[in-house]
Amino acid sequence: MSAITQEDLKFMTLAYEEAKQGYAEGGVPVGSAMSCNGELLAKGHNKRVQDNNPIAHGEMDCIYNAGRRANYRDVTLYTTLSPCMMCSGTIVQFCIKRVVIGENKNFDGNIEFLQTNGVEVHLLDDAKCTQLMDRFIQEKPHLWNEDIAVEE
Amino acid sequence: MSAITQEDLKFMTLAYEEAKQGYAEGGVPVGSAMSCNGELLAKGHNKRVQDNNPIAHGEMDCIYNAGRRANYRDVTLYTTLSPCMMCSGTIVQFCIKRVVIGENKNFDGNIEFLQTNGVEVHLLDDAKCTQLMDRFIQEKPHLWNEDIAVEE
Repeated sequence: MSAITQEDLKFMTLAYEEAKQGYAEGGVPVGSAMSCNGELLAKGHNKRVQDNNPIAHGEMDCIYNAGRRANYRDVTLYTTLSPCMMCSGTIVQFCIKRVVIGENKNFDGNIEFLQTNGVEVHLLDDAKCTQLMDRFIQEKPHLWNEDIAVEE
Repeated sequence: MSAITQEDLKFMTLAYEEAKQGYAEGGVPVGSAMSCNGELLAKGHNKRVQDNNPIAHGEMDCIYNAGRRANYRDVTLYTTLSPCMMCSGTIVQFCIKRVVIGENKNFDGNIEFLQTNGVEVHLLDDAKCTQLMDRFIQEKPHLWNEDIAVEE
């Protein structure tokens, strides 16, 4: 298992900037970035509110922005929040083999599912990612429940 | 477990029509429909080629077309082909509790994963769905492999 690098932290900062942009737009503040051999492929953030799009979680928006690819070999996906089952299933289906997660305190996600399916997962436990998401959940609990389909 | 109804067959026909439209457009011919208490909510089909969109599998396009929802209670999702891990993860995350599948001969999908996660799954083993997909895979094997991220 490869260690976290300075490059990883740089890409996570880009994902966090995407999350902040989502927050500023009134949306769900989850951001994502994708790299391949040290180069940025795409960024994205949750656009449920902005695009009236229930499948545009941060990771999905990023994968969409990366366009069609023959394969996801050597790709690392960065996400500010631990991936839900939609995004985790997508990571596994597309054979993305390395995922760096900002935090899982606000949403546990599916780290074990990813690891069981051969994905190398790094959890940063990043305070800034945690604080932004925590603030959003306190401010807009109904929107957050809608995003992860929790019935109220 | 509820039985398959005439209504289910009607919605599967709509999903198949979507798949045929996708084929005519030069795309991956997987179609989908979604109903709630007997009413059509949305239809969709794979748009990888048409929209240059790697996450627009038939089921995902259908869920996108249905727009934002507070919950997916009483929803049935119809798909001509057994769902991949992206679509299966989405079904589980959004708590869609009933899925009707046209066929799984051309792609096994994740029926056991769905069932383990409490989804009621009906497999129709529909000859028309099977023939359309089989024809496409023979004609465009590279596109099919790209759609499910199989490296060549």
